[in-house]
Amino acid sequence: MIGKVGEFMRRRDRLFDLLGAELVKVSEGHAKVEMEVKEEHLNAADVCHGGVIFTLADLAFAVASNSHGKISLALEVSITYMKTASAGERIFAEAKEVNSGRRTATYLIEVRNSKNELLALAKGTVFRLDRELPL
Amino acid sequence: MIGKVGEFMRRRDRLFDLLGAELVKVSEGHAKVEMEVKEEHLNAADVCHGGVIFTLADLAFAVASNSHGKISLALEVSITYMKTASAGERIFAEAKEVNSGRRTATYLIEVRNSKNELLALAKGTVFRLDRELPL
Amino acid sequence: MIGKVGEFMRRRDRLFDLLGAELVKVSEGHAKVEMEVKEEHLNAADVCHGGVIFTLADLAFAVASNSHGKISLALEVSITYMKTASAGERIFAEAKEVNSGRRTATYLIEVRNSKNELLALAKGTVFRLDRELPL
Amino acid sequence: MIGKVGEFMRRRDRLFDLLGAELVKVSEGHAKVEMEVKEEHLNAADVCHGGVIFTLADLAFAVASNSHGKISLALEVSITYMKTASAGERIFAEAKEVNSGRRTATYLIEVRNSKNELLALAKGTVFRLDRELPL
Repeated sequence: MIGKVGEFMRRRDRLFDLLGAELVKVSEGHAKVEMEVKEEHLNAADVCHGGVIFTLADLAFAVASNSHGKISLALEVSITYMKTASAGERIFAEAKEVNSGRRTATYLIEVRNSKNELLALAKGTVFRLDRELPL
Repeated sequence: MIGKVGEFMRRRDRLFDLLGAELVKVSEGHAKVEMEVKEEHLNAADVCHGGVIFTLADLAFAVASNSHGKISLALEVSITYMKTASAGERIFAEAKEVNSGRRTATYLIEVRNSKNELLALAKGTVFRLDRELPL
Repeated sequence: MIGKVGEFMRRRDRLFDLLGAELVKVSEGHAKVEMEVKEEHLNAADVCHGGVIFTLADLAFAVASNSHGKISLALEVSITYMKTASAGERIFAEAKEVNSGRRTATYLIEVRNSKNELLALAKGTVFRLDRELPL
Repeated sequence: MIGKVGEFMRRRDRLFDLLGAELVKVSEGHAKVEMEVKEEHLNAADVCHGGVIFTLADLAFAVASNSHGKISLALEVSITYMKTASAGERIFAEAKEVNSGRRTATYLIEVRNSKNELLALAKGTVFRLDRELPL
């Protein structure tokens, strides 16, 4: 379900462990990650921290953008926050490729709760190196 | 040095502990946060994760935008990555208010390493509620 | 096909005329605008100016975000450029609402050429006033 | 005051004429552009169109990012709107390089009115080609 690139990314990207996130699906140009919001992820307003939501989106973005096997580095990400999440909720980030050029590629990443409500929408662009992932 | 709002944010925002970050300076419309990049913060390329850099910036942004005592919620953040950081390096995020309107306010947040090189630049906008922080 | 809000926006927004753009479709939370790239729209590299592509997207965004009849003001827009357009090409911008909250709403705007290739993708957020459009 | 690159950009970028904008200053990594807001630049709310403000910023950004003599193409721009401008006002956009890497470079662009109030702040990133501008 997550393939060789997925296994590589899951093993090497330490933020999966720091957040307690799980890589649930990978295909070419696409990835889905999920986690449970815990007490340790809350901000001063007692809802899931914007940095946690961003990082979950970023994990999906990194896997999707490396899914073709070429090393891809994030240049820029813009995120819009729409709805909060509370401790105990499961949240999901799904990244989809919207464009893949010779040097750069762009992704949309949606973060949703288990009712499928949109919590945040991110748009990110990577620079593609000529080097293969060391799988 | 960090005042009442700073103490409140430091105590209540759990991401300071999750990242091992420290709030070093707060004044009206301004905040500075620092941390050491550790093994647990690395991505698949063995450099500091974009989500960690974003979250450090977001901590400074949250403190700066709440520094006037009104609850402020992030609407949108855009981040551009420029340079990587390795395990063992200390990194800093500094947020400055560039505009404060009746309902929204905008901040620039620079993330730098200890040589003062720019690692990332973020621009973020908050929505200001009419409610005071429950200090 | 463009309704009362569409007619109002088409008549009042002077950028339709400055660009030679046409409002082709409006429904709740959605709008489509098109134009022909002319010599006067070219940048120093002899392709359609990024400002023209942004403005076409912005016209669709403005109509879509005002389509419910409440005055909506752009807070923030982020645009990613993917492909260029040349003089003589027809280009299209289509805005779709991805979230509509109590105070803010967010839109994705795609700009495409007549082969349906993506030229640019924008994400924009508006602040909704309590005032109705003076139709 | 605007040098060879400035003269080249001013002559070749047709948007200076479409907006009635003037290139007032160019140095390495820096450019300033100004214009008068006219009736033809207004949106449905009778204030200067977001697309016009963006395009003015984009003109400064394009000149600043090409100022080193290498062709630079915009990858991404994010703009935050803060204050409106009315017909008859003069507005200014000033772009400054905040980072210049091997392949990409990032700029902040401020748009201000003649009272020096900030109307909008943009952050933009270009991809640098290996080709020189055909001065």
